[in-house]
Amino acid sequence: TKEDFDLAAIYVSDAQYNRNIYFDTSPEAVRLYLRYNHWVSQVLLYFFILLDLSLAVFEDPAVFSLPIWATMLVELLCLLVFTIRIVHYAKVIPRDKFWKDPKNICIIVIIVLTLVDMIIYGALKATNYYGVRWSRVLRPLLLVNVTEGRQLRRAFRSIRNALPQIFYVFLLFMFSLLIFSLMALKLLGKRGLTTIDGSPYFTNYLEIIFDLYVLVTTANSPDIMMPAYNASYYFAIFFILYILINNYIFMSVFLAVVYNNYKYHLKEEVRQLVRAKRHKMVRAFAVLQDQREGREPVVNQANWNQLVRLVQPDVSNAHRELLWSVCDNNNHGLTGKVAFVQLADLLNIEVITLKSRPHPLQSLCPSLYQSAPSRLLCKLVQHRAFVIVYDLIILVNAVFIGLDEKNPLIANSEWAFLALYLLEILLKLYVFEPRAFFSKHSFWNWFDTIIVISALIATIINSSVTLPGTYTSRQILDIVFILRVLRLIRVVDSIKRFRTIINTLIRIGPAILTFGQLILVVYYVFAMVGMELFKHKVKFYEDSSDPTKAYCGNVLLKGTAFAQLNYCKNNFNNVVSSFILLVELTVVNQWHVLSSGFAAVTHGSAKLFFVFFHIIVVIVIINIFVAFVLEAFFVEY
Amino acid sequence: TKEDFDLAAIYVSDAQYNRNIYFDTSPEAVRLYLRYNHWVSQVLLYFFILLDLSLAVFEDPAVFSLPIWATMLVELLCLLVFTIRIVHYAKVIPRDKFWKDPKNICIIVIIVLTLVDMIIYGALKATNYYGVRWSRVLRPLLLVNVTEGRQLRRAFRSIRNALPQIFYVFLLFMFSLLIFSLMALKLLGKRGLTTIDGSPYFTNYLEIIFDLYVLVTTANSPDIMMPAYNASYYFAIFFILYILINNYIFMSVFLAVVYNNYKYHLKEEVRQLVRAKRHKMVRAFAVLQDQREGREPVVNQANWNQLVRLVQPDVSNAHRELLWSVCDNNNHGLTGKVAFVQLADLLNIEVITLKSRPHPLQSLCPSLYQSAPSRLLCKLVQHRAFVIVYDLIILVNAVFIGLDEKNPLIANSEWAFLALYLLEILLKLYVFEPRAFFSKHSFWNWFDTIIVISALIATIINSSVTLPGTYTSRQILDIVFILRVLRLIRVVDSIKRFRTIINTLIRIGPAILTFGQLILVVYYVFAMVGMELFKHKVKFYEDSSDPTKAYCGNVLLKGTAFAQLNYCKNNFNNVVSSFILLVELTVVNQWHVLSSGFAAVTHGSAKLFFVFFHIIVVIVIINIFVAFVLEAFFVEY
Ligand code: NA
Repeated sequence: TKEDFDLAAIYVSDAQYNRNIYFDTSPEAVRLYLRYNHWVSQVLLYFFILLDLSLAVFEDPAVFSLPIWATMLVELLCLLVFTIRIVHYAKVIPRDKFWKDPKNICIIVIIVLTLVDMIIYGALKATNYYGVRWSRVLRPLLLVNVTEGRQLRRAFRSIRNALPQIFYVFLLFMFSLLIFSLMALKLLGKRGLTTIDGSPYFTNYLEIIFDLYVLVTTANSPDIMMPAYNASYYFAIFFILYILINNYIFMSVFLAVVYNNYKYHLKEEVRQLVRAKRHKMVRAFAVLQDQREGREPVVNQANWNQLVRLVQPDVSNAHRELLWSVCDNNNHGLTGKVAFVQLADLLNIEVITLKSRPHPLQSLCPSLYQSAPSRLLCKLVQHRAFVIVYDLIILVNAVFIGLDEKNPLIANSEWAFLALYLLEILLKLYVFEPRAFFSKHSFWNWFDTIIVISALIATIINSSVTLPGTYTSRQILDIVFILRVLRLIRVVDSIKRFRTIINTLIRIGPAILTFGQLILVVYYVFAMVGMELFKHKVKFYEDSSDPTKAYCGNVLLKGTAFAQLNYCKNNFNNVVSSFILLVELTVVNQWHVLSSGFAAVTHGSAKLFFVFFHIIVVIVIINIFVAFVLEAFFVEY
Repeated sequence: TKEDFDLAAIYVSDAQYNRNIYFDTSPEAVRLYLRYNHWVSQVLLYFFILLDLSLAVFEDPAVFSLPIWATMLVELLCLLVFTIRIVHYAKVIPRDKFWKDPKNICIIVIIVLTLVDMIIYGALKATNYYGVRWSRVLRPLLLVNVTEGRQLRRAFRSIRNALPQIFYVFLLFMFSLLIFSLMALKLLGKRGLTTIDGSPYFTNYLEIIFDLYVLVTTANSPDIMMPAYNASYYFAIFFILYILINNYIFMSVFLAVVYNNYKYHLKEEVRQLVRAKRHKMVRAFAVLQDQREGREPVVNQANWNQLVRLVQPDVSNAHRELLWSVCDNNNHGLTGKVAFVQLADLLNIEVITLKSRPHPLQSLCPSLYQSAPSRLLCKLVQHRAFVIVYDLIILVNAVFIGLDEKNPLIANSEWAFLALYLLEILLKLYVFEPRAFFSKHSFWNWFDTIIVISALIATIINSSVTLPGTYTSRQILDIVFILRVLRLIRVVDSIKRFRTIINTLIRIGPAILTFGQLILVVYYVFAMVGMELFKHKVKFYEDSSDPTKAYCGNVLLKGTAFAQLNYCKNNFNNVVSSFILLVELTVVNQWHVLSSGFAAVTHGSAKLFFVFFHIIVVIVIINIFVAFVLEAFFVEY
């Protein structure tokens, strides 16, 4: 029946995309489940999640301020969408399964807490009290808990699995830190040494712990050592030993522990995925099988064809025939269970059909296209020398870009280069079949064409607005420059060794996006907390000559490295600044200056926020990222 | 014959210690070879290599200045020893093998070049010209090329094997750096922005390349971004993209490539070692075998016993019997080839004989030792609570150490803690058999006892010199403090998880020493070159109030971050300073300030020295080190 086919198709496509949902098999639930997995509803869901997350841009402290009722209204809309989605999901799967799944509980809790927070905040604001939108930290958790966040959940799982082991290494590391700090206090505290700004050196135990923690991140090397080193060569031994043990040994051990765990659990996860996939395919087979007495059950070709058409409507007949020939290797018109189970993997293999179609010009005017000069041209373009000549042109172009563009010769040369690049694309289109040239996998052809045409358009616009004596739009010129420089990247493709590395990077690209989401979740939470703690404590002024605007507008910063280094724009005054500041903290360098700055304008314990961020992001997540790149590189390179 | 046994013993011990020397098998050569491998001659060789290396302390620029003739005389003595050693080696192995081995050629070249250099330098000095002792960079190469430097050569081989792949990734990375620099020049160069000290921002292409290279090492983040970021939020995108690609992606790829190579070549090396070991054992077998017609050759027990006695004279009879029972598993009194070949590995296995000897007090006065109170005491000490009580004492001690030692109560409490620790050791010695307590593998017992007794001695000395009103020797007090804090480390041993991690670290310790040698070689070469380039350009004065002593004694440093941060002691004025400076450069932070300082007092191109050091040490060697720790940790943890 139609319903059987729908059910089997769902099993196959769940297996194909590694969905692990135990939906109800009643016809109505199956129909709802199909709608639940439709790409339109998934795109809509992500759109509303992003909308919800991006509300932080408009909420206080805002980049673009909107009234509270506006953001609240949008947030209510988002919550409504999430509620519809979870209700939809509840109708698809059995009730007991629904309430056992922590994902669903999480989403419901997030929705409810957000509503509670909105009501409290609205009431406080209406009565002019100070309110905190604390539920904003919950928003990114939606990304993790929606059905589609499988990859992200897997990344979080690998972190959770590594945590116990990381924790013990971390404890040992903290012990070492405390011991070294105590030694530093005893050895250096009573010597009356001073730091470069005249403050006492290593006299306060808590400050020593912070300073030595910062030294593990290398951010205050060698400054923290200099007063002791200036006093005696011997103290350098203390610091070198400290760095050796806590920076080189412990940080390598962190990576080793994380990588070890990652590899171990990756194997386990892959094994489970394969098992679940097989299980689903067996169910699909059970739905469609013809039971013959005394013989193994089979699926016939007609049913199989209809199934594949349902699962992937866009697959060509030729491709389907090919898949069938793999499943039915005895040519009986039947496929057994073992062969049927492979279908999900077979559908995931991309078959590139290399049809050598004739060039359209060949069909339009064969005599011209086949003439001797035309064939010579084709040979020339396909020759290695053609690539080398264009690589040289790119190099000359690079030199010209480096020179001063005010010189009219240089400025006009741009037109010549543009013409040369356009000529190259046209020549290639003359020689190669255009549909093959612009096929899905020809990354560099697309890259080239888009960059050159954009550069052409931008250059034309730019020169039309640079009438003599008029104002040149800075933005357009910037775009022209960027496009010009991007054009040079193409040279990478002509060196085989580079191509291998780049292709490896492109292949692991999609998985890196999962880490992008992971970082987004963590950054968002820290940004929300950071904004509540530190908003408007540090201000950035374009012109700081006014005395009230000195020291980032906060006199508490007077004399701190934060103000001296002009870090005023590194603040938590809106979500964009916060994210940029968190990137800087991830890079680690000067994070102690940033954290000391925020501690100076609030309280010493504010440093804990920054230490906590360092532990979570740099020690845990970046190490997981490195472990992931290491593993991915071994598989792909 | 005796000579056969000597030959077989050499094969076995070569197999045991993975020596790979194709020595002459004539009796005289075998005798010489035995002497060549004797531990005394090996220790002497390393002593003279260290002596040769340590000459840098006394040569200009010196820590302790000695006249030229003195250092030259010592160096000649060292060269003489090396010559004797190489001549000895030449007599051991066949002539054609000797001249084909690059190690020997290297050593001869080093000796000859050093002599030439010494003559030239002596002549120049005698005629009062300026001379450079350039052959000093060759000294550390001796460590690599002596026969005993196997592990070090293996480390260098793994670097050499990784180089081609690192090179291509590095080229791609340089390409990315150049492209980004060009973009930065075009986007930011014409905007008239200034850095914090008022100098133009991003206007010189070469400086941009250096600045962005430094940004990859994160050392100038976020300072290098601030002027652009202050101008517009959009420029932050440029820098974040740059850091993402060049710091996170490329640096992970470097590690991945190095680790990939390391793992691959490690497997290959291990395979070769196993093959060579087998080969040598087969030869030993061939020397000792009894040929019986029509049957497999064997070695009888008497010969085998004599061989083992020759190879390891200190092995006990019981242990030898055990080994024989493994080799002769049929109890025929004979061992075949297959069983014989295992001998080298069997000898390497450490057998810990756990003899449960009675306590000496048990034999001396059994009635007392077996009495009820004595047995209760034994039970108490062996109880878990005993460990917990002492862990608590250590914690209390830690708090007391942290408090002010000027307080007489705190000062006197030290005696109480010392007494408690001594009591613990005495109690344990009462309960456990002393020889078992101080066995080779009881690291923590040794650690404890040594620390406590040293602390006792130091505290007694310290209090005997701190008579009221007299001067307290700072050095003794420092030692007392260090010992007191070290005592606290013991707590680590009572937590099982920590013990596992520490034991893993202790096991990979010896291999880390190979990396120590590697670093020593590279540091020494860079220190020698650095001293020639930068000696006495930057000076450190205890008191810089005198205007001629400002800016590290070099007016060219006026206004540089180097002078402002008081980095004067980070210089190349002697080998100790140089090594400490190179450690700071390895830690990376602020290396651009250091390199810019040295560029300011010499020439802009001096930065190349520092960039080169960064590439060699941080990108190549530290990554090899991390790869090594990762691999070692997986095997051991
Ligand atoms: Na740094």
